[in-house]
Formats: sequence, C-alpha cells, structure tokens
Amino acid sequence: MISVSEARAALLRLISVTEIEQVPLAEANGRVLAQPVSAVRDQPPFSASAMDGYAVKRDEVELHAMFQVIGEAAAGHRFEGRLKAGQAVRIFTGAPVPDGADFVVIQEDVDRKKDLITILDQPGASDNIRPRGGDFTIGQTVNAPRLLRPSDVALLAAMNIPKVPVYRRPVVALISTGDELVMPGGTPGPDQIIASNTFGLKAMLEEFGAEVRILPIAKDSDTSLKMAFSLARDVDLVVTIGGASVGDHDLVAKVSADLGMERSFYKVAMRPGKPLMAGRMGKATMVGLPGNPVSAMVCGHIFLRPMIQSMLGYEAQEESLQTATLTHDLAANGPREHYMRATVAAGEITVSPRQDSALLTILADANALLVLPPHAPAQRCGDTLHYLPI
Amino acid sequence: MISVSEARAALLRLISVTEIEQVPLAEANGRVLAQPVSAVRDQPPFSASAMDGYAVKRDEVELHAMFQVIGEAAAGHRFEGRLKAGQAVRIFTGAPVPDGADFVVIQEDVDRKKDLITILDQPGASDNIRPRGGDFTIGQTVNAPRLLRPSDVALLAAMNIPKVPVYRRPVVALISTGDELVMPGGTPGPDQIIASNTFGLKAMLEEFGAEVRILPIAKDSDTSLKMAFSLARDVDLVVTIGGASVGDHDLVAKVSADLGMERSFYKVAMRPGKPLMAGRMGKATMVGLPGNPVSAMVCGHIFLRPMIQSMLGYEAQEESLQTATLTHDLAANGPREHYMRATVAAGEITVSPRQDSALLTILADANALLVLPPHAPAQRCGDTLHYLPI
Repeated sequence: MISVSEARAALLRLISVTEIEQVPLAEANGRVLAQPVSAVRDQPPFSASAMDGYAVKRDEVELHAMFQVIGEAAAGHRFEGRLKAGQAVRIFTGAPVPDGADFVVIQEDVDRKKDLITILDQPGASDNIRPRGGDFTIGQTVNAPRLLRPSDVALLAAMNIPKVPVYRRPVVALISTGDELVMPGGTPGPDQIIASNTFGLKAMLEEFGAEVRILPIAKDSDTSLKMAFSLARDVDLVVTIGGASVGDHDLVAKVSADLGMERSFYKVAMRPGKPLMAGRMGKATMVGLPGNPVSAMVCGHIFLRPMIQSMLGYEAQEESLQTATLTHDLAANGPREHYMRATVAAGEITVSPRQDSALLTILADANALLVLPPHAPAQRCGDTLHYLPI
Repeated sequence: MISVSEARAALLRLISVTEIEQVPLAEANGRVLAQPVSAVRDQPPFSASAMDGYAVKRDEVELHAMFQVIGEAAAGHRFEGRLKAGQAVRIFTGAPVPDGADFVVIQEDVDRKKDLITILDQPGASDNIRPRGGDFTIGQTVNAPRLLRPSDVALLAAMNIPKVPVYRRPVVALISTGDELVMPGGTPGPDQIIASNTFGLKAMLEEFGAEVRILPIAKDSDTSLKMAFSLARDVDLVVTIGGASVGDHDLVAKVSADLGMERSFYKVAMRPGKPLMAGRMGKATMVGLPGNPVSAMVCGHIFLRPMIQSMLGYEAQEESLQTATLTHDLAANGPREHYMRATVAAGEITVSPRQDSALLTILADANALLVLPPHAPAQRCGDTLHYLPI
C-alpha cells in the first residue's frame, strides 16, 4: 500500500495536459488559456470622453469661461473638425475627443443657452478623458496558462480575439461493473441495486471540466468487461468502478492486465478507497475505483480532480484543505488516512457518527471530508482539524 | 436614486421562480430540486455483507470454531438455501446475507481448508452486515428546494429516480447597444470598439445557471433597438447594456417605455453602475445596465446573480461578503456605495489605484470587489473591510 500523496503523485505522472484547441470566445469561460494571446488594437483606440459634457481646451477652463458649441461627438461618431480657441464640442461618454480638445467639462458644471455654454462650477482636476491605450495597447498579452473567468472573456472580447487557444476538455469514460447493477429507471431483480456511482461521478467530473461518457454496465465476466473497455478506446481516462471482488477474483485487475494495462499501483492507505488501482492502458490512463458509492465519490475528490485539472492545464496546486474546530471528541485513527464525512457550519466541524462507505444519505448531507492522517491520535472537542470542502 | 439594497429588493420583486420541468438524472446536477422526491425502494434492498468473508450464525462465532462452507453469495447472486448450525456461506461485499445467517466473519480472520473454515482471530463486535434499508427506506424523501450536488445525484440514482423535477433554467437575452460597437472578429471603424460586455456577461450568467442568448447589437436608433427587443419576446429576462446616453437622450429608457415597460426604478446610488434601470416588460423582466464594461460586470455580480438564483429556486440569501485586512490607507467614500476592484491574497486586500469603470484589464486581474458603504470614512492600513469575491 502507498500513501495518498504517493498515489496522487503517481496518478499525475500517468497523465499529461491535453492538446490545444481553438474555441469560440463564447465557450472559453472556465477553460485554461494555453498560449499567450495579444490585443490586436489599443483600448480605447482613441482618446475618449469618460463623461457626458463639453470638450474644450484645458488652458481655457476657468470659472465663468464661455465657449461656443460648434458640434457634437457621440460614441461611434466623432466630430470631424478641429477645435479652436473659445470653442466647445458637445461630447458623450465613449466618444472620441475632438482634435484640439484636451479637457471635458462635465455637463453638470455648465449652463447652456443655445450654442453658448458658461462654466458655473469650478471643474475638478480630472480631464475626464480616457487616453488612447489606457486600458491596453496593441500587442499587450494575456499570459498563459490562465484559468479564464468571465472578466477575462470580456477582456479578450475587447482585444478582438474571437477564437481562444485552450486545452481540450479531457474525455472520461465511466464503467461500472457488477451483475448486481441496474441503470436508474430499470427494474432491479431481488438481488440487485441501482447503479449510482456513474451518475454521481459524471456530475462531479463535469464540474471539474471533463467531458464524461457513461458506458454500459459491465457484467461480472471477462467478455462483458472487455466489451466495455473496447468502447473506451478513444478516451483520455477510463474509470472503472467496482469489480475488485468478484468471487475470489479481482476481475478488473485481471481483465485490464489481459488488455495490456501497465499498473502503476494497486492499493492506497486510505479510508474509504483502499482498493484503488491505476496505470497506463494504450493511450489512455486507467483508474480502478472501489465499488462502494461513498468510496468512489471520495476518490473522485481526492484523485480524479487533480488529474482532470492537470489534463486541463491548471497549474499544479496543493489540495486546498481548510480548518475548523471539532465539536466533539474523536477516536484515534488507524494506519490509513481517513476521509470522514462531516458537516462544517460557522467554522465548526461535526463528523457523522456513521462512516460506512455505502451510505449515500450521509454523503449527500455532508459538506466536508475531515482528513485524519494515518495514526492520528485521539482528538478532543475544540481541536482545530483540517478538512476538504466537498 | 435608491440604495443598492433597495434596488436588489425591487429587482427580486420583479421576478419569480421559473416553472418546474423534469430533467434526466444525468442533467440534474447544479439544478434546484423543485418538489420532494421519494425513494422507490430500500437501500440496501436486503441485508448485505459489508465485507468479503463468511456468513455464519452469530451465536456460533468464537475463537477456533469450525464451519462447513456450503455455498457462495456474490453481489447480484444470493445463496438460495438456508444456513443451518455449523454451516457457513462464502460471501462477498454487497451480496445478500443468506437466510439463517446474521454475522459475517471477515476472510482475514479465518483459515480455509477445502470446505472447512476455522476462526483464527477473534472477530470484532461488528456483524459486518449492512441492514436492509440502512441507507434509506422506501418512501424516504429528499426534500425541496435543494441545490443538487454530485452526491445528491448519486443518492437519487440509488433511489431509482431517473427523472428529476427542477426549476427550468431562466432564459436571458443580452442586448448591447451603440453605434460604436462591433462584434469580436469584426473590423471596427476608426470610431468603434469591440462589444465585450455581452461576452463577459454571458459567461457570468451561465455560471449562475441561466441560459443566455446574445442578440444582435442594437444601433442607436429606435428602430434598431425595437428590432432587438422583438427578438427577446419569449425570454425571462432582457438585459440591455448601454444606450442611456445617446446624444441627449436615454434611448433605452425611451424605447422600453414605448414598448410598455413599467419602470420599477431608474438610478442606484452605487459606483460603478449608477444608471441602472429595471421594470416589467410584458411577461419578461427588463434590466438596463450601464455601458461601461466594468459597470456592467459589477452590476451582474450585485444584481443579476440574486435574480437568476431566485428564478432558479435558490432560497434567498444575503450577499456573502467576506472580510480582509486593508494593506494601505483609503480615502473617504462619497454618497454612493462603492464597489472597488481589488485583490485579496492571504487575508489581505489591496485596492487597485485605477478605478475607472472602463478598465477591463484591472477587472480581469481583480478577484474581489471591496464594498465601501455610502459616506464611509477614510480607512487606514490594517482596517478590516468587507469584500465580495468575484
């Protein structure tokens, strides 16, 4: 058995970032920019008024000064002439500042009578002009890698970048295994249960940014499992769930070995999730998750998230554990790192008394996994402990 | 002018939760459950082994006890007979516990020779059996409203609920206005800029859970703006951007009034974002955002997020402000609530020295909006202030 951090490191060695694809700007949010992109223009592309008012010459601005209004400049429609002494141009926010003008008196500071304006309030120091290139200049780059957020999308739009180079979403195939499984909506026999892991994991991995395919359930036979694997030949990551305890066999280990899987590791010192397996299988990475629903979901958080984020080009980052105060005593931990279902509220963490890895109701009501290192001593009410938000 | 909180309350009065739709389970993640759903079966549906081992009678379990193995129970395949005294059934995790058995000795605790097993280690107190209905029982409900997360999706799957009643995603139409605007990828004239707001807002509102349509840019004319509105007749929310300062007119206010918009309010005491307008327009709600890119995005965070979440059935919640320590002095605020672009790192907040609402580069590099209430006094380095993460 290897430790959780060893397993995570081994898993990250098994994958690589996906190739770069160009996506339309409208689909770039949440993706990782893969190459620097450069503005193809200045923003603003001209000196622009920041306010509604009158464009004038700065050195003529003083209380009671009068100007003749000779034209108008609106956003999209510049005033074509050149301002001379004593003249003003009516100007609106976003409009190009006319040649010869270098100051905008805001409209609240003037009195207008026909084509004459008089400055009635002393203007402030600001010229109310956005200089050309004040936001960005042509050639200015947005550097990669960068996780693109809505404000980045707006910035790329303003830079006139209609297609964006990002890392392709990794494709993940989910194979659940077991004669006992029936799809939701199906009619289970008396010995059967509903396949829940694939649906929970699909939702989770899509949140992480993957494209997820649920493959047909594999029965507990070589043939059925090989058929399922054959449907996953073109994906980046094959995830099996269950199948490690079929009669006296680990069916997934056997069949994946038959299919040429080079195993990286087999078991991890963690609860839940001990029977975790991973390796290379052709061009894909294969991860075998335990079949208990909670184990599979916890392994999704702990292992599949960093794998998918790494394939997506996210910069490697430590697991972002947070801290909270324990509301009760807690027994010492055994030799395996324990991820205990818990609820955090107002900085306090309460561990569910029921930690059976089959209990989905407990997981659904949890919002945290309390992380107990191997051989952690008993904890007391009031101790500060680490947890992973889920 | 009304305050930010008055504006938010008025906006929430303009909208209502969308109708309920049934979505396939695989699409339910992130949606709000609209009606309680009930398990159509017990989970587990039978007493099931929690371990690989041997099913026996509990009162026969003691160190050195021997049992004859009479059969096997695997997941999906129960042992059909009934266990008698001195007998054991080989059993695997998830398999139904045979009739007559009420204890599973884990395989690590026994020695097996052909069909005989001997208990070599004193079993613990646990019977290693998951009782029928131990996770949930038939008729047990998941209550609504509830924001569905991946673990809920797994739970609903296990309950055999293939379709899930959730609130429909609200449809939002985005109309940017202005003769100066050109779509990304287009060729702007010398007085023009690229439309960036609609792309940034689309990304943002999709993150909030809306379905977003970018409509054609409306030119600065009644006709063009009316054409754009006519394309938005069937949506829940129409958002215009800009158009409040076209020549001496507020074109959006005029045209929306012509089209029967019942205005709820017009201006809000905030920076950026003062010229915010909202009202009912036929069956839709209409919000007019200011045209400056940063203003539009900030208004998206402050106003459109609670509106969309409310339409999606999220329970009303206060804006989740966080606190951080200011790294520098900050001048007193004026009469309007100020949302200042800032960067938070390690509990410290630094306000950008450039707060012009046209600067997308500043917004893209910010991860917080520092919130200064109206007339807030000058702040000192080391003060604790509120911010909104963005």
